[in-house]
Amino acid sequence: MTRRLRLAMLGGGEGAFIGAVHRIAARLDDRYELVAAALSSNPERAATSAAAINLPFDRSYADWRELIRAEAARPDGAEVVAIVTPNHLHAPMASAALQAGLHVICDKPLAVSLAEGEELARLARQHDRVFALTHPYAGYPMVRHARHLVASGALGEIRLVQAEYQQDWLTRAEEQTGNKQAAWRADPAQAGPAGCLGDIGTHAYQLACFVTGMVPRQLAAELTSFVPGRVLDDHVQMMLRYANGARGLLWASQVAAGCENALRLRVFGTEASIAFDQEHPNELWFTPLAGAAQKLTRGRAGSAAAQHATRVPAGHPEGYLEAFAQVYSDAAELILARTEGRAADALALDVATVEDGVSGHRFIDAVLKSHAADGRWIDLG
Amino acid sequence: MTRRLRLAMLGGGEGAFIGAVHRIAARLDDRYELVAAALSSNPERAATSAAAINLPFDRSYADWRELIRAEAARPDGAEVVAIVTPNHLHAPMASAALQAGLHVICDKPLAVSLAEGEELARLARQHDRVFALTHPYAGYPMVRHARHLVASGALGEIRLVQAEYQQDWLTRAEEQTGNKQAAWRADPAQAGPAGCLGDIGTHAYQLACFVTGMVPRQLAAELTSFVPGRVLDDHVQMMLRYANGARGLLWASQVAAGCENALRLRVFGTEASIAFDQEHPNELWFTPLAGAAQKLTRGRAGSAAAQHATRVPAGHPEGYLEAFAQVYSDAAELILARTEGRAADALALDVATVEDGVSGHRFIDAVLKSHAADGRWIDLG
Amino acid sequence: MTRRLRLAMLGGGEGAFIGAVHRIAARLDDRYELVAAALSSNPERAATSAAAINLPFDRSYADWRELIRAEAARPDGAEVVAIVTPNHLHAPMASAALQAGLHVICDKPLAVSLAEGEELARLARQHDRVFALTHPYAGYPMVRHARHLVASGALGEIRLVQAEYQQDWLTRAEEQTGNKQAAWRADPAQAGPAGCLGDIGTHAYQLACFVTGMVPRQLAAELTSFVPGRVLDDHVQMMLRYANGARGLLWASQVAAGCENALRLRVFGTEASIAFDQEHPNELWFTPLAGAAQKLTRGRAGSAAAQHATRVPAGHPEGYLEAFAQVYSDAAELILARTEGRAADALALDVATVEDGVSGHRFIDAVLKSHAADGRWIDLG
Amino acid sequence: MTRRLRLAMLGGGEGAFIGAVHRIAARLDDRYELVAAALSSNPERAATSAAAINLPFDRSYADWRELIRAEAARPDGAEVVAIVTPNHLHAPMASAALQAGLHVICDKPLAVSLAEGEELARLARQHDRVFALTHPYAGYPMVRHARHLVASGALGEIRLVQAEYQQDWLTRAEEQTGNKQAAWRADPAQAGPAGCLGDIGTHAYQLACFVTGMVPRQLAAELTSFVPGRVLDDHVQMMLRYANGARGLLWASQVAAGCENALRLRVFGTEASIAFDQEHPNELWFTPLAGAAQKLTRGRAGSAAAQHATRVPAGHPEGYLEAFAQVYSDAAELILARTEGRAADALALDVATVEDGVSGHRFIDAVLKSHAADGRWIDLG
Repeated sequence: MTRRLRLAMLGGGEGAFIGAVHRIAARLDDRYELVAAALSSNPERAATSAAAINLPFDRSYADWRELIRAEAARPDGAEVVAIVTPNHLHAPMASAALQAGLHVICDKPLAVSLAEGEELARLARQHDRVFALTHPYAGYPMVRHARHLVASGALGEIRLVQAEYQQDWLTRAEEQTGNKQAAWRADPAQAGPAGCLGDIGTHAYQLACFVTGMVPRQLAAELTSFVPGRVLDDHVQMMLRYANGARGLLWASQVAAGCENALRLRVFGTEASIAFDQEHPNELWFTPLAGAAQKLTRGRAGSAAAQHATRVPAGHPEGYLEAFAQVYSDAAELILARTEGRAADALALDVATVEDGVSGHRFIDAVLKSHAADGRWIDLG
Repeated sequence: MTRRLRLAMLGGGEGAFIGAVHRIAARLDDRYELVAAALSSNPERAATSAAAINLPFDRSYADWRELIRAEAARPDGAEVVAIVTPNHLHAPMASAALQAGLHVICDKPLAVSLAEGEELARLARQHDRVFALTHPYAGYPMVRHARHLVASGALGEIRLVQAEYQQDWLTRAEEQTGNKQAAWRADPAQAGPAGCLGDIGTHAYQLACFVTGMVPRQLAAELTSFVPGRVLDDHVQMMLRYANGARGLLWASQVAAGCENALRLRVFGTEASIAFDQEHPNELWFTPLAGAAQKLTRGRAGSAAAQHATRVPAGHPEGYLEAFAQVYSDAAELILARTEGRAADALALDVATVEDGVSGHRFIDAVLKSHAADGRWIDLG
Repeated sequence: MTRRLRLAMLGGGEGAFIGAVHRIAARLDDRYELVAAALSSNPERAATSAAAINLPFDRSYADWRELIRAEAARPDGAEVVAIVTPNHLHAPMASAALQAGLHVICDKPLAVSLAEGEELARLARQHDRVFALTHPYAGYPMVRHARHLVASGALGEIRLVQAEYQQDWLTRAEEQTGNKQAAWRADPAQAGPAGCLGDIGTHAYQLACFVTGMVPRQLAAELTSFVPGRVLDDHVQMMLRYANGARGLLWASQVAAGCENALRLRVFGTEASIAFDQEHPNELWFTPLAGAAQKLTRGRAGSAAAQHATRVPAGHPEGYLEAFAQVYSDAAELILARTEGRAADALALDVATVEDGVSGHRFIDAVLKSHAADGRWIDLG
Repeated sequence: MTRRLRLAMLGGGEGAFIGAVHRIAARLDDRYELVAAALSSNPERAATSAAAINLPFDRSYADWRELIRAEAARPDGAEVVAIVTPNHLHAPMASAALQAGLHVICDKPLAVSLAEGEELARLARQHDRVFALTHPYAGYPMVRHARHLVASGALGEIRLVQAEYQQDWLTRAEEQTGNKQAAWRADPAQAGPAGCLGDIGTHAYQLACFVTGMVPRQLAAELTSFVPGRVLDDHVQMMLRYANGARGLLWASQVAAGCENALRLRVFGTEASIAFDQEHPNELWFTPLAGAAQKLTRGRAGSAAAQHATRVPAGHPEGYLEAFAQVYSDAAELILARTEGRAADALALDVATVEDGVSGHRFIDAVLKSHAADGRWIDLG
């Protein structure tokens, strides 16, 4: 028997899409019990939102600082907080939670600056808490398998990395017409200095790093704001250089007409290549040099890494919510192992952490710097 | 606030794949609380299985009859049972539950004979209980949308129906080498008189009926047992005739080498055709006569029917577990509406019921009859 | 140096789509020189058509019987005739050509009855002439490779054969609105007793036989005429039984809305399966039991059979005209080998011959018979 | 009646892949008659090669200068030369041909330097000759249609251009192991200063320019030679800026393991996007903003531009040779129109000319310059 962890949620009131996703993800594998929440800073909205999800009245808070204080003090209080607010609140919330001894599961990006991110990493180390970052795409079984293939040497030496992420929902000025999701993402005060770059470019970057096991050494980048009146970028493109000589391109766009959520990664080595498409996550294409493309599937990839992140048999598709649940379940394993003083299941270590978040901020910083220098090559440090 | 229904599970102990699927499905949309279970008739295994899922000791039963009796008597007892055993237990369990006033969610096929099925339908009517059958493939948003498209007349008059379902996991005699899932399916005493026909042929049939809104008038069929020593069919093929003059083919095979879970449906009308592939469930292909094929997606199909069965935005894939959860959530809506004396959400009526189960048994009977008559056309009556 | 064969064409005047295709096919691999033609029985149209293709005035004939007589008598006369007329003229033309000592390349179907077809086969044997039937789909490299794979045993014992062919261009009554191609196909006097069955059903049948190397033992079939006023079938569906116990389905439809030219074949054996789609002819899918699907391509399939039918490197698509040219080129090899008294290249023997045409008529006859007997199983004998 | 043009070929002896392709392309649409050739500078090989293609003995030359002199002098001499040699001979041959009054069809790249290319353009203008460059990918019907769609405004204002071209045949040092095709491409003396960039990068660039109707204003590029000992680049990647503010990426690689001939173009506008994949050339994907992806096909795109480049009906695939033939056929139309003093069919103007070749050299130069400046943005001027 594996006991359920006691979870509190910060943010995620009615109308906040990602809050509902986090709750399903926490529930799906039955590793958490949602015991408390500060769903909104508006007391009335906090209460209504809590009722809508059957949360007991006395564990619903309007003030997230009060939640952290009160829950940390209860013997049956929350052990872990899930942070699902706009970006600018991530750092203050996570910081307070860590200092109160709580583990943290935080939506990405980690913070709104590299300095904030590094401070969180320091706090997590100091307080020895688990800090998971919800990069759900790295929770897909075939992404886990891809990482495993690269690490196993099946691709040979990596030469080319091609990452891309397209959406079209910001093709027009949605932030000016009442779309709440668009509004905070377009506002530097809430989103930080990166628009599309921070929102989805970081996903593409994290995926490329996760699968290849490599961080680029340098990048040359350019940001664009296509939509008139938009302050932050809605498109980013860049060239990448790796320490082993590999080269690559990464681009992300939220004005790519016709695209829903087209995150794709291709990696080419001296012996073979792989290709992953987030919209068809149950497949991973593997093609040996001069050979036939093979459609590897979750059920037949035959790796422990894919199996670890799988719930149902071959041919029964899993999706985004399962990948998201994998982040929660791996975090649960890390937290329980920490609590029980044992080594965690090695496969759970694939979950993104605060260090990955810091790496993401280094990436954002380098892109901003390269863009400011008209595309000069910048070290990723 | 929508209250959670109190659910009891019959069957589904450790090692039973489908039990875990039902539990995730019940949990995913937060419409149920699992309060009791008879996970195994073996008391020790029942207890271990209950502990593994954090079920309170006093609500775990080794005798399913005892569960029904006890839970029906408690004021906080289960309101609905989920039946997830091999086929031969469906009818006795469902029958007892209905008679005790419980609602029923039952794995398919409904029973092991048409007579059993018809008796269950009679009992459900008599006791006025909701009886949902878990045909998860009809829970996919794009299948809901397909049904909607056909009903809207977008295809014109239906002319051709092509349904098929291939798996390869019984290509060899797995039932003779210790595979428990294969063993009971290959045993007429547990599975009933139909093998592949009952196991997956009925899914193809239900999907075709659900999407077209039509039941064939006649069929001409042939069963085959390819694997030496196998008593039940592992392949079935048939021709279909519909009352409006439409024609069709249906085949299902568990010896189709290379196939995981390849359930596909194509429907052609006078104005357009549609195609659905269960392994890519977030897409539905729609092609007008002499026009370009269009890849309709969950997020952009624009129908209330698809939206009703959707949790996350366009481009974030949903899968089998979400489709299965849809069955549970629609059943919850029907049960609550019955309990609260109100009309149910019309879109929840798309869930399969005991009547669909009876229709499935009529189909099985007709196929067995046609096969026995060397493929003569048999009325589905 | 390989000399060009002297070719005469019967039929194929202006507006006749298939005549132009035959001419390109004959020209593509530079194995033929078109020296004479009877492009139309209308003298004026014959002359205009001849001029349009740069054919010398004195080798253009309005009377095909005259062409055969005159060309057979010239020392530099045609050695081979290509017959590209509506079906009812195939037998008289081919018969005259064979009797005049000419080789024959004939569009399919061979004739309008089994008796006619058998007589042509007898004549071809008697006069020892090459008689090629233009089943172009068997000229695709990946279809050649598929046949090779099956013959090599890579699929194990064949269990399932699924052939289908859909078009939508006859969804409405085109034959009543001046479409010349539709008109003769809908007219039993020109097309024979089979509509869709003869026009495209025979292609699906030939492809299935060619790839599997097996002829079904029995079939149970049903013809349908969906379009009001149409005399011949526009849809055919059937079940197949093979001598080795294999089973199958075949269907063809010219009223399948949204389909252009969707000829597909799937073959499942005990060890693997293959799938071919005519609209993507440079690929053949091969999937081992419980393994990953592999996209075999022309350039990387590595078989002599595929290479034999290939002109350009991997990744440079070949298409329908190249497959059609392959029929002509293989026929040229057979004719030259006959002329030169040597054994032909074994790979050229894959071209369809008069015997395949006879087999096609046996198939048509059996389908007509089964349909007349309400779908009774009929021997293909 | 359209008369055939008299064609002479320079290069293309036995073993030279591209020579055979040019001959098929010239023959396919019956617009040319091959009357003379200098297939090799080796007299014996020239003679053998001529015999192999049935070329009359007295029109086979070992010296290409002699061919130009002799053919230009004959009343029935060649009117047009096809140049199919390694790159370094393009300019001297084309220059001599133009000066002798012959039209030119030249394989790409145009020359080995921008200066050479500009001189050829000057000569073509001076002598008023047609100069076609064989960029076959722009001969595909769906590429023609793509250009038409962009020009029609169906995509709105162009924002993003993504071009890529991958092959894997140079993943290892083929040039050191006797592969003749690899050897000349790896040798700056024969190939010029650009390797992969000149060989396939220029195809990607030409395709992007052709479809969008736009030339980039600036690029920032990087060349890589992955294979030890290779002097020229085998990979190139770059960022693009367009005058209207559009952005883009272009990359080409001949060390992309698993790729055959993966030339792909995606263009995103404010209203819709398109995607083309050379390995599936009968399809063009068109997706409106927030809408369903549509698979446009050759037969159903409904544009005159696609129809112009089409030979067979919908669903009958055309391929690389047909696209190559389109270049020849459009060139024939331009030459005949020039000869007959009439305006050419406007749709034939889509064929690439010497000006496109010059544009390609400007591109190559800019890439070399940017690479030398560590990826600085360079004007394409």
